[in-house]
Amino acid sequence: MIKFHRNSFNIRLEINLLLFSLFLITQSAAAQSVPANNSKLDSAIIRSIYDEALGNGQSYENLRVLCKDVGARLSGSPEAEKAVTWGYELLKSYAFDTVFLQEVMVPKWERGCCESGIVYLENEQKKINITALGGSVGCEKPIKGEVIEVKYFTDLAALGEEKIKGKIVFFNRAMDPLLINTGAAYGGANDQRTKGASEASKYGAIGTIVRSLTLADDEFPHTGAMDYLEGVLKIPSAAISTTDAKYISASLKENPNLQFEMDLRCVKHPDVLSHNVIAEIRGSEFPDKYIVVGGHLDSWDIGEGAHDDGAGIVQSIEVLRIFQSLKIRPKHTLRVVLFINEENGNRGGITYARVAKELGMNHIAAIESDAGGFTPRGFRIDANDNQVTLFKSWSKLFEPYQIHSFLEGHGGVDIGPLKDGNIALIGLSPDSQRYFDYHHSDRDIFENVHRRELELGAGTVAALTWLIDQYAWGNKD
Amino acid sequence: MIKFHRNSFNIRLEINLLLFSLFLITQSAAAQSVPANNSKLDSAIIRSIYDEALGNGQSYENLRVLCKDVGARLSGSPEAEKAVTWGYELLKSYAFDTVFLQEVMVPKWERGCCESGIVYLENEQKKINITALGGSVGCEKPIKGEVIEVKYFTDLAALGEEKIKGKIVFFNRAMDPLLINTGAAYGGANDQRTKGASEASKYGAIGTIVRSLTLADDEFPHTGAMDYLEGVLKIPSAAISTTDAKYISASLKENPNLQFEMDLRCVKHPDVLSHNVIAEIRGSEFPDKYIVVGGHLDSWDIGEGAHDDGAGIVQSIEVLRIFQSLKIRPKHTLRVVLFINEENGNRGGITYARVAKELGMNHIAAIESDAGGFTPRGFRIDANDNQVTLFKSWSKLFEPYQIHSFLEGHGGVDIGPLKDGNIALIGLSPDSQRYFDYHHSDRDIFENVHRRELELGAGTVAALTWLIDQYAWGNKD
Repeated sequence: MIKFHRNSFNIRLEINLLLFSLFLITQSAAAQSVPANNSKLDSAIIRSIYDEALGNGQSYENLRVLCKDVGARLSGSPEAEKAVTWGYELLKSYAFDTVFLQEVMVPKWERGCCESGIVYLENEQKKINITALGGSVGCEKPIKGEVIEVKYFTDLAALGEEKIKGKIVFFNRAMDPLLINTGAAYGGANDQRTKGASEASKYGAIGTIVRSLTLADDEFPHTGAMDYLEGVLKIPSAAISTTDAKYISASLKENPNLQFEMDLRCVKHPDVLSHNVIAEIRGSEFPDKYIVVGGHLDSWDIGEGAHDDGAGIVQSIEVLRIFQSLKIRPKHTLRVVLFINEENGNRGGITYARVAKELGMNHIAAIESDAGGFTPRGFRIDANDNQVTLFKSWSKLFEPYQIHSFLEGHGGVDIGPLKDGNIALIGLSPDSQRYFDYHHSDRDIFENVHRRELELGAGTVAALTWLIDQYAWGNKD
Repeated sequence: MIKFHRNSFNIRLEINLLLFSLFLITQSAAAQSVPANNSKLDSAIIRSIYDEALGNGQSYENLRVLCKDVGARLSGSPEAEKAVTWGYELLKSYAFDTVFLQEVMVPKWERGCCESGIVYLENEQKKINITALGGSVGCEKPIKGEVIEVKYFTDLAALGEEKIKGKIVFFNRAMDPLLINTGAAYGGANDQRTKGASEASKYGAIGTIVRSLTLADDEFPHTGAMDYLEGVLKIPSAAISTTDAKYISASLKENPNLQFEMDLRCVKHPDVLSHNVIAEIRGSEFPDKYIVVGGHLDSWDIGEGAHDDGAGIVQSIEVLRIFQSLKIRPKHTLRVVLFINEENGNRGGITYARVAKELGMNHIAAIESDAGGFTPRGFRIDANDNQVTLFKSWSKLFEPYQIHSFLEGHGGVDIGPLKDGNIALIGLSPDSQRYFDYHHSDRDIFENVHRRELELGAGTVAALTWLIDQYAWGNKD
């Protein structure tokens, strides 16, 4: 064990002392819309925000309840409705200025009664855990066929209908372990999952199995959204674990004619009514200008949706709670939105943006946390040049919290539809190394979320929210 | 799940193409001892180092063997000797230029046959898991007494002998959760463990129990080094879990006279012979100038010493393996040192530095990894101004790997004795949030180390080693 110095401890004490003397003048002193000057005052307020997140944080306990009392909550399911009720009642319990539900029609897809996969080798059979991809059609009865392994869609074209027709296509392109950001590795592999079924079906495949999108070597299949092309026969599609993908790939080398049998009983129902859950603290100076913080309330139907995106939900709620607890009255109206249906439709995000436009609402910024409850590393911003410049000027204020990454990039799926040329869309960027170990699998459970990492993320979103509220980028009234 | 852009993927491809064309001229082009200019060439070499760590890494499998086949390995134990043999044979298997053992006399302390703790309330008893602090004396027979809870040594003075004599002192100062760097929180609480027994004994205490040094709320007691003051009666000292600390503290409020019984059977033996394990790749230009990378081979006698410091050991070995695999011949002689006895004596570090001085060896830099196998965040450097300036000039090269923290600070315990005004001492700084969950406890096992996080740390140390080797700070021959 190394030895550490205690400088940061002393710095904190100093800042806290400062805070007491400076807090009362905050609202007036900081009321001018000028860029942050990294002043001691800004530092003191931000320190108090992190202190509240770490010292009195409620995000971890809120996440426990969401994961354990509600659990997996796919849009359209009774559990998703339970999550809506949970969110509404929790926000009510904080007595924010307003708490309400916003109607959203969401898709309803069910995994169905049973799913199974069997590898047939010459003299043996092996059962394989499979998980239907979200949106897959089911089978009338189990389908069975030879397996043809590919990595890219171009492999399908090269093989052609002759070699694919009547077979089960096995997409086995691994996520690239050399990419530092695992999200980029995910981005480089997820077309197999999202579009593979229709691409294979074009050549007469009867089904597809897809290597799970994770860098972990384990036994867990990972689900996730897929969609079909119009006019192409819909075939069943399921994920298998990375371990089983390696097993099947190795087996194919020895037994090129091995067969795979898969059974899925997925069902697509008509859309059903669900809700975004919204709460707000009204702004003291610009009540008609909105800052949104949010994540998505729905999850896939396996695991507990702990990192994806229970973490983002409880962190977003925590932002308002921290403002309230520290008696920081925002100048702009601060909204938390628990979006429904990010995973398979984004109807919550689309509906929220549509209604906001219809009402002529002025949203100046939206911040989303939807990349897991891991140690925060920074933000990605999608905004105009002036906003980006101001945003980057705040980086020094975050250095004591080891937040270094202030990059331009995609803000988030839920907030994406708000994009209008004026609003700044910002995503929290946590450390990405462990995210895909859990993502969309039975491993995405509360026990795999670390309290301090979660709380640091909450503090980080709250601190950025405070800076935006203080120094917002001069949107028109 | 958010969507990610794939820029880093393209950047990597470009760099790899560059690498092939530029690699051959590396040795001559970079041979001038000038500051790195963050050139494409430097970037390409560093990219290839990370690629090797992530794509062909052996650190994770080496750690598995160390944890599972050797396990806990306290200095002086048969397991520590097994670790020495493991290290020697592993380094031999890589066929580095030199592999040898360096004799080190180490302390030998044993936990002994049994340890137990019992809380006696009025009408009930509760067994408590305790773990002797390393170096504690044992009891002749179980000791039992009233419990007096304190937080600071000044509390002992305020209470005085009258209220302490004959009792068991319970140190219950929590690590400060508001400090971002958990190492700083550890530094602010560990005097209770290292010095508490003698401080309490001065006032007639018969034993001490210490709240474990962790921010986790769990049932695991965490051990660690303690020492006694000369001339003060030595009393037994054990750690209890944070959960039990809260339980006892709450119980004391209702039952101020509750008693605690503890039994430890620790034994101190005479010093025994052990070894540092050393391997090197000889330098092509400056074979008599040394760069050391290392960690400590010993661990505490519970858990598996996975993060502390199996991770540092396998990362350090990986540095040489990466140089060898990429056919990078270092200009300076590159040494890996598996130091023995960091945990309770630092005899390995002291001996290594003494021998180096006796032999008149010229060490230009030493890098230590001993803060866990978590996502690397940066480095701490203890060096002269010119070295620090050059070191900080490299920060841009590490940005693609999300390494941002280039700070002055303590390098590491093992390498500390090398300090001589010329050598640069550098410590790897991984993310600190989870470290003390595992540290010195039964939870410090292989399963709690993440492969990619470990490998990123190995790549980071190797990349820094390469930069130092290329651009070293002009030490005299």
